[in-house]
Amino acid sequence: MPQLSKRSINAYASPIRKLAPYADAARSRGTEVLHLNIGQPDIHTPAGAVAAVRNWQPDVLAYTPSKGMSTYLNKLPLYYMQHGIDIQPADIVVTNGASEAIWMVLLATTDQEHEVIIPEPFYANYNGFAAMLDVQVHPLTLRINDGFALPATADFEAAITPRTKAIMLCNPSNPTGTLYSQETLLELAELVVRYDLFLIVDEVYREFCYDDLVFFSALNLKGLEQHVVVLDSISKRYSACGARVGAVITRNHQVIANVTKYAELRLSPPSYGQMLATALLDTPAGYFADVKVTYTRRRNLLFKRLSAMAGVRCYRPGGAFYIFAELPIDDGDRFCQWLLESFSYNGQTVMLAPGSGFYFTPGLGRREVRIAYVLAEEKLHQAMDVLEKALEVYPGSVSILV
Amino acid sequence: MPQLSKRSINAYASPIRKLAPYADAARSRGTEVLHLNIGQPDIHTPAGAVAAVRNWQPDVLAYTPSKGMSTYLNKLPLYYMQHGIDIQPADIVVTNGASEAIWMVLLATTDQEHEVIIPEPFYANYNGFAAMLDVQVHPLTLRINDGFALPATADFEAAITPRTKAIMLCNPSNPTGTLYSQETLLELAELVVRYDLFLIVDEVYREFCYDDLVFFSALNLKGLEQHVVVLDSISKRYSACGARVGAVITRNHQVIANVTKYAELRLSPPSYGQMLATALLDTPAGYFADVKVTYTRRRNLLFKRLSAMAGVRCYRPGGAFYIFAELPIDDGDRFCQWLLESFSYNGQTVMLAPGSGFYFTPGLGRREVRIAYVLAEEKLHQAMDVLEKALEVYPGSVSILV
Repeated sequence: MPQLSKRSINAYASPIRKLAPYADAARSRGTEVLHLNIGQPDIHTPAGAVAAVRNWQPDVLAYTPSKGMSTYLNKLPLYYMQHGIDIQPADIVVTNGASEAIWMVLLATTDQEHEVIIPEPFYANYNGFAAMLDVQVHPLTLRINDGFALPATADFEAAITPRTKAIMLCNPSNPTGTLYSQETLLELAELVVRYDLFLIVDEVYREFCYDDLVFFSALNLKGLEQHVVVLDSISKRYSACGARVGAVITRNHQVIANVTKYAELRLSPPSYGQMLATALLDTPAGYFADVKVTYTRRRNLLFKRLSAMAGVRCYRPGGAFYIFAELPIDDGDRFCQWLLESFSYNGQTVMLAPGSGFYFTPGLGRREVRIAYVLAEEKLHQAMDVLEKALEVYPGSVSILV
Repeated sequence: MPQLSKRSINAYASPIRKLAPYADAARSRGTEVLHLNIGQPDIHTPAGAVAAVRNWQPDVLAYTPSKGMSTYLNKLPLYYMQHGIDIQPADIVVTNGASEAIWMVLLATTDQEHEVIIPEPFYANYNGFAAMLDVQVHPLTLRINDGFALPATADFEAAITPRTKAIMLCNPSNPTGTLYSQETLLELAELVVRYDLFLIVDEVYREFCYDDLVFFSALNLKGLEQHVVVLDSISKRYSACGARVGAVITRNHQVIANVTKYAELRLSPPSYGQMLATALLDTPAGYFADVKVTYTRRRNLLFKRLSAMAGVRCYRPGGAFYIFAELPIDDGDRFCQWLLESFSYNGQTVMLAPGSGFYFTPGLGRREVRIAYVLAEEKLHQAMDVLEKALEVYPGSVSILV
């Protein structure tokens, strides 16, 4: 039998999805599994846009242009304008979700052995794509004690080497929910220009900012037009993960030209998804206002419940729909598996994402978990009941020494 | 301004799509451009399946499982069974078109510096994906004189080195339309086993076999269950290129496991596309019979018209919907651009794909073009009128020395 490639053998299996067989087993035992492990919102996709797709009756479901359907490309700048971001259709390449945008942008900006500085914990799949393309990840470790704030500029600077090509961020952050402010980004901008780096910012959670916090897009950093590349997606914004429509946005048209080469290589983004995405641009502002109210309540609920549990350390995240919490446990991977394999309360258990999978540095995040507040409040309460009881009886419980 | 990556600067721009600006310019001059340059069929997508998607009203357009929707995976083996191929849902990973299947399979089977033997001319994007992943292409040149038949086993064997990991084919072939017979594949199979290689076969044109030629799938090569990996797609089969639904099919479950890692990395194939693909499995057999009659007539028309043109060399292809012809011209790239820039006949011109883009070896295919018979017969006749007149006046015409 021919050997598989070494790179695929060494490739990172998704840390979020690897617990799935244990969840299946729990369900077949009759246990209800409350899924707080993935960023799949329960919010309804705007019905008007779904209806618009139902009105579409193509004779031939043809390829669209590789960079995206012109009707979508021409209308999309209006969405950004509503967020005070001035971009043109020529600044956009439509992709199969932000996932595809990640690898296309890494290919266009980095060669093998180049380094990309990414604050950790970070979205685990950045790691998978970097490994796939032989790009080196240089992590900068964030701390729960200060709500996973970005490190000081001096720390970023200390991490820069002659091989550094880019700094990569997710704002608001998956997995921490931390929102990086305009001031923070302006400080970073000075460094990016001084060292002539790319600043790659994943802004797929742009809509999800709470309290009085205001989102500031990297696209609005003056003088960084040739440095900033934004990864975007309609998946979270409109609860349309299955549409597979994302985008690369940059005013650097050399990056656009080279991303386009890869876009042409895979021929076309999906037609149906782009039809939906175009219709979604007519979503009334009230939809987002309602969604924000819903998520704010859920976040408050989770934060309150977690804060009341003995030995649990967390913070009030300003954006996205995740809380990254430290639990009084020996090992998050073991605990999350145990929840599915060996525990239930009132016929329910909870599925969480182990924290270690979001760190590049081995050994970090062992006591942490990512909790996605993507279920209704009643279910979230039940999930917190399960977690509270579980922590009382988990055999690997430990006291946290402060 | 930060530098782009060397790999993206050196990346191959799509040879098929690079003439697009000239076609746009021709259209703005009022010239009708007859598109025989891309594999986008004009055949209607089966209306019943399009209607089924219109009946779908998801509340939440969620991610599907990374390997594909279970309803689709469970039903898809029935399609293969109709072609005498016995596969199970566990042998399938659903992809974003065959394009995504190419890079996932290359990643799972080859490391950097491994070699893949591919008969040329071949589908140009194999080259782009191989370059993207640092896999070396080892071309074996086919000849128009024998209708682009595969070389003798001894020629394949001579091309094998210690770094060879796979042989890659497209059957029936894009761009030549040549169908490789069961006998040909059996000969190759012996070699594949002896050298313990992967045999990667792109079978997206499986349905398109003419005359009395019978398609033989590599999945039916006995004893090669661990060697054969098939790339597939619904794009050509059902004229559903915009759905972006393809598949990796193999009984080698180690390959499935490692392809799945990359499938999880990009999260999910498109939901709408998979809903359509599921409904398309109910397409009546009469649809394919009609399509085959249509394409057979078109192929016969093209072959007859081309054969009647002075200095044109071609052959009667057994499958797919392409003819790869040699024209009495100095350079196909120049000729195809000239057709769009400087020529029209009765207000029309024709867009063809220059042959050179389908060769790995520099300098080959300069007098060749790929002609896709994806338009109605009336349009094909007009296109042949344009080509015939163009060859009479093209400044770079040459006599072919036999």
